[in-house]
Amino acid sequence: MSELLYDCIIVGAGPAGLGAGLYAARDRYRTLLLDKFYPGGQINNTDRIENYPGIEAIGGADLTMRMAAQVKAFGGQIRTSAEVKAARRRPDGILEVITAKETLAARTLILAPGSSYRKLGVPGEDRFRQAGAGVSYCGTCDAPFFKDKVVVTVGGGNTAVEDTLHIAKYARKVYLVHRRDEFRATKVLIEELMDYTNKPGSNLELRLACTLSEIAGTQHVEKAVLRNLKTDQREELACDGVFIFVGTQPNTAFLKGFVDLTANGFIQCETAFLRTRVPGVFTAGDCRIGAAMQLVTAVADGVNAAMWMKYWLRDPGWWTEMLSEALTPSEW
Amino acid sequence: MSELLYDCIIVGAGPAGLGAGLYAARDRYRTLLLDKFYPGGQINNTDRIENYPGIEAIGGADLTMRMAAQVKAFGGQIRTSAEVKAARRRPDGILEVITAKETLAARTLILAPGSSYRKLGVPGEDRFRQAGAGVSYCGTCDAPFFKDKVVVTVGGGNTAVEDTLHIAKYARKVYLVHRRDEFRATKVLIEELMDYTNKPGSNLELRLACTLSEIAGTQHVEKAVLRNLKTDQREELACDGVFIFVGTQPNTAFLKGFVDLTANGFIQCETAFLRTRVPGVFTAGDCRIGAAMQLVTAVADGVNAAMWMKYWLRDPGWWTEMLSEALTPSEW
Repeated sequence: MSELLYDCIIVGAGPAGLGAGLYAARDRYRTLLLDKFYPGGQINNTDRIENYPGIEAIGGADLTMRMAAQVKAFGGQIRTSAEVKAARRRPDGILEVITAKETLAARTLILAPGSSYRKLGVPGEDRFRQAGAGVSYCGTCDAPFFKDKVVVTVGGGNTAVEDTLHIAKYARKVYLVHRRDEFRATKVLIEELMDYTNKPGSNLELRLACTLSEIAGTQHVEKAVLRNLKTDQREELACDGVFIFVGTQPNTAFLKGFVDLTANGFIQCETAFLRTRVPGVFTAGDCRIGAAMQLVTAVADGVNAAMWMKYWLRDPGWWTEMLSEALTPSEW
Repeated sequence: MSELLYDCIIVGAGPAGLGAGLYAARDRYRTLLLDKFYPGGQINNTDRIENYPGIEAIGGADLTMRMAAQVKAFGGQIRTSAEVKAARRRPDGILEVITAKETLAARTLILAPGSSYRKLGVPGEDRFRQAGAGVSYCGTCDAPFFKDKVVVTVGGGNTAVEDTLHIAKYARKVYLVHRRDEFRATKVLIEELMDYTNKPGSNLELRLACTLSEIAGTQHVEKAVLRNLKTDQREELACDGVFIFVGTQPNTAFLKGFVDLTANGFIQCETAFLRTRVPGVFTAGDCRIGAAMQLVTAVADGVNAAMWMKYWLRDPGWWTEMLSEALTPSEW
């Protein structure tokens, strides 16, 4: 009984997986994409994208559908509701992924499971997350939509401080809510934050030692409810949006023990080649170290992984050969 | 007299420059793109693009116009007919670029001058290059357009061999023309080429010790004229397309002495951060080492450079600090 062997199995059909899938399929490799739900991943939650170069404005789910159609047009298969539980490398070098229903074999894997924003878990957060109703997790993506509006941001790390300063360039008024008295962010960011906050007429106010306890509104966000941890006082802030910056969680738990992960769960790789420590296993997108976490960078990550994959499929020696040589494209 | 200081000057308004420009401008940095001609670069020569994820099919010039409009919509300036002759770093750390008309100053440069395909310089090559008339320089991009057609390919290096094998998956018949008896490509590629060529009924034929001397046709390519260098015999091959793989030339001559270049002229950089050896100077796209030379990877390169640029603008110490730390996104 001969085994069905794919050239390439892509784990995750978000932007990175779909980019990889288009290139692998168009290069006529036998390509299968697996997704635990359906294609698109996190970008499906984004109502309006205006920073994907070449497309003035589009909804996340609409863009996903277009990308998935391209993959299929070139013969790539996409299997939905196919959550990968584990992956392993057989003694003969063939790679296997295991879902609830089956074990699938391939010469190459591209791991693109993406990441999820950590949630606060407060009332209203989920309700207003969908369709631009006012809750966001990405300042670079969504700040321009809050021009001249009032915004509440939450968090104390680098992303929280940096994105709050970014949002303050657009918003009329910003409140930064942090549960501690001090910020975790790097010194230079904290200095910039304090300089900006303390200048006369600043549009940024801090709410330290406070937590966000509720987000409320009818059709969209109308107010945020805070609680001061020292005085236990409650405060209501009228606002148009809430940005939550409490971290990112790569969807990599099922890969523990198969590839190397950082303490925070990001997949370790040589970023120049997107190779993990396991021969034949590449990674792409928000799940890996060093990712810029933008839509087009995730898509291109997948494309890059599919391009490097060809070297591996052609010559297993590539995995260990001198890197500097392969880095000169004119020699390819 | 106070000097006009840009936050970011981007040299080259092709896909990489336009990607960088969109992100830099949308992040409200004072951003200027310079191009020696007009926006788009090499992609303007491409009639039909079907491997840009999210867009089923589009012409190169059309895509360029859309990307340039996005950059401008967020306040980025694009100056055309502005060829950069030289760049330098002043003792105070400010970066300068010099055009024929003026000297411009910036806190950051993103070098994205792109690259050009080397031409054979034979009659017909230029004439059939435009608008899908049959001459191409990129197998990954254009092979699918020659399904069931007859194609002549030219060259003897890795790209020539690899892309010829790729084209042979689509074309009915392929002739590979090489002026020498032996190929420069790596051993494993040559073996694959010979195996493929020698198998019974193969659709690939070699024409060694031959040069392509002319490409002829009326509206599009109809034949290729070869000359055998040993016998001086002339051969005419009826064909639908000619792919020329004789190398790539990065447009970096003006940067010599400013940043480090490889022997072939590619810009040296840390690929994880797209940083050159000059503080504040980033690079993106086909001009750099390690580029995959695809449209979406160039665009994302520009976006990545603009994302990393923010670290430099915020904290000059970032340029020299530990890399591994900055590679963990959750710490940002």
